[in-house]
Amino acid sequence: MSQNPYRIAIAGLGTVGLGLLELISKNGDLVAKRTGRRVEVIGINARSQTKDRGLDLSSYLWVHDPLDMPDLKNVDGIVELIGGDSGTALSLARKTLKAGKDLITANKALLAIHGSELADLAAQNDAAISYEASVAGAVPAIKTVREALLGNRIFKLGGILNGTCNFILSSMESTGAAYEEVLEQAKALGYAEADPSTDVGGFDAAHKLTLLSSLAFDHAPDFSAVTVKGIEGVTDRALSYADRLGYRIRLVGVADEISARVAPMAVPKDGNLGSVTGSHNALHIISDQAREIFLRGPGAGRSETASAVMGDIIDLSLGHSRAPFGVGDRISVSSASELTETQLVILQISDEAGVMAALTKALAGQGVSVDQMVQPGGKDGSADVALVTHPASSHALVKAWTFIAAQDYVLAPIEAYPIERFGE
Amino acid sequence: MSQNPYRIAIAGLGTVGLGLLELISKNGDLVAKRTGRRVEVIGINARSQTKDRGLDLSSYLWVHDPLDMPDLKNVDGIVELIGGDSGTALSLARKTLKAGKDLITANKALLAIHGSELADLAAQNDAAISYEASVAGAVPAIKTVREALLGNRIFKLGGILNGTCNFILSSMESTGAAYEEVLEQAKALGYAEADPSTDVGGFDAAHKLTLLSSLAFDHAPDFSAVTVKGIEGVTDRALSYADRLGYRIRLVGVADEISARVAPMAVPKDGNLGSVTGSHNALHIISDQAREIFLRGPGAGRSETASAVMGDIIDLSLGHSRAPFGVGDRISVSSASELTETQLVILQISDEAGVMAALTKALAGQGVSVDQMVQPGGKDGSADVALVTHPASSHALVKAWTFIAAQDYVLAPIEAYPIERFGE
Repeated sequence: MSQNPYRIAIAGLGTVGLGLLELISKNGDLVAKRTGRRVEVIGINARSQTKDRGLDLSSYLWVHDPLDMPDLKNVDGIVELIGGDSGTALSLARKTLKAGKDLITANKALLAIHGSELADLAAQNDAAISYEASVAGAVPAIKTVREALLGNRIFKLGGILNGTCNFILSSMESTGAAYEEVLEQAKALGYAEADPSTDVGGFDAAHKLTLLSSLAFDHAPDFSAVTVKGIEGVTDRALSYADRLGYRIRLVGVADEISARVAPMAVPKDGNLGSVTGSHNALHIISDQAREIFLRGPGAGRSETASAVMGDIIDLSLGHSRAPFGVGDRISVSSASELTETQLVILQISDEAGVMAALTKALAGQGVSVDQMVQPGGKDGSADVALVTHPASSHALVKAWTFIAAQDYVLAPIEAYPIERFGE
Repeated sequence: MSQNPYRIAIAGLGTVGLGLLELISKNGDLVAKRTGRRVEVIGINARSQTKDRGLDLSSYLWVHDPLDMPDLKNVDGIVELIGGDSGTALSLARKTLKAGKDLITANKALLAIHGSELADLAAQNDAAISYEASVAGAVPAIKTVREALLGNRIFKLGGILNGTCNFILSSMESTGAAYEEVLEQAKALGYAEADPSTDVGGFDAAHKLTLLSSLAFDHAPDFSAVTVKGIEGVTDRALSYADRLGYRIRLVGVADEISARVAPMAVPKDGNLGSVTGSHNALHIISDQAREIFLRGPGAGRSETASAVMGDIIDLSLGHSRAPFGVGDRISVSSASELTETQLVILQISDEAGVMAALTKALAGQGVSVDQMVQPGGKDGSADVALVTHPASSHALVKAWTFIAAQDYVLAPIEAYPIERFGE
């Protein structure tokens, strides 16, 4: 233990920041014993110094301006837990890297949008960017892609990257309640924020997918290339028909060399992704050498995310850092229209003679070939139809649903979910 | 790319060795682009130089004696893929570390038995030991415990660590065939070796559990402390009753701070471990910060294991190494008798009046409290009973089964499987 400690300053004392302080105070000796190098917190900061956070912070140096942190004497790494893709978080990230200090962050939005610029700064100043905590909590998603599978050509990766959406969808599924009702419960339980749009709109998952895609497919982070659809339109009706047909609906992010998208998708009920319930996250990686790797665990949480931050800090304390992201351009960005996929589709039609025949004719006329169909009994003049298509171009399917949605006998917006099997 | 390459010599050209040569020739440029450092194979060796391995090896230097490899000019790491816990593998490992070269190996038996001595040699000579490939193929099991979760106090870990056994048990399950029959199929398919005793006896899984336990619980590898039971006695009958009661039988290795054991266990059918079929491996880790992490993937295979070896080589090429194992003694080694557990038990009794009453009385007399019981109809004078106990001391249960097995009306060996839920 003759070596200097690895000295960090922590900006932001929300859930994760406090979790990290607790972790270091509880397991710091164990870490020092395991690695031979101690981690020392030499400064902390948050918006309010006086707020009661349920933790005695008096032994830490309070740094009044987080932007002063990179100038602290002997500081090695700055832990940015402020959040947001601009403002102080961005300024602190830039200043940290310019000062040649390591940046440890859980901020996926910041990296998804400014990752390329920050990676350049890191390279110019011989500093590292570590961000395991930004994807899937304590699940070693980044480490697996950035380190363990580095000898692999990855074909495809993806999974359940947003715990809030997974909690909402799996609660709707188990209780039969509607989206709005479960969203309110999720807010009350702390699983959703007061303004949940980043989560339920799919943007948070898209930020994470941007980072994973950059690493896996060797290009700079490019958030704008991700197609994003949220879960706001998922109905309890759709979940129930998905179940009858052997599927669950999950917000899934999937990327390959040419495309990246986040959307509610239908996944096999008993498969790896279908069995992920509550706020868990899961990642499936398909590659040339390792074939398939599946990782799963809590997607967030105080100690869980702190565990990931600490893993990064320990790596850096041992001088172990990697190129933060892939570099260069994507091979080509395909629009979703070029994909071939099968879809699970829910329609609500009027329960009248001749309508089913008209729908069948319209499907055929639009070139939609149906693999499975269920037609539960109608009620109050409306009837539901749930079907699974044969593989078709995503573009052709969108066109078909647009055409069919315009017919008189279609009573509600059509819900169409891509089916994602991940090789299962 | 101005840096010297990381130079390796490969001893052993079986499946994994050839897979590694293929990986480097296929993805070597990609790796160099990703890391900035090339990996170069400067020597190879195997028992026979002339054997046709389906790969052109003429461009590699053939090293006639693998023990000369550590003396190769500028060699950085030796990849030991010879196998076996003694002989050339052990000599080569010792010589490599004494020469201050890195040892990369997939040899769990060697490390489980000689890990402590080899770790001392590594420390004395500033060399590294990397062995991701020795546990669960390409699944980053070692990396997760040794790096990602280093800030965690791990409470318990374990899972399915032997693909051969999992293939056999899940095939018995899906086909209803008996153990011996499926074992022969597994041999024919290359899933089991001609002498399968290391796998089916549970020893291979115990070697792996020894390494994981050392890392997770901070003690030197201690193979002799693992309680080992193989799958040879698992009947198709037991699998079928387990299914009826909601379980599958898997060879599971589980360790905590005070104990480590490998045995066929009953796991919930729809849980993480129960859904692992074929030759896949899976690892569940429960800890104070990350809570629970689940990893799954192919447990072996040419390219899969090569992927893990390559991950280690890349880490070492970047100068990233860790202490190989935990050091020191276990807190205390508990015998299985001190465990409390529930068991799934299969009995075959004579189908005569009064026998069921006698069994019930014997169970009560032995203090075995029954939670669930099924009694399918008897045939040919014998009847089966499958039951799940309430929690009891493992020691008391063993005593009870010994007593009951000695009764006249018990017609076959009693099968008792600990139920392992892993928090599910």
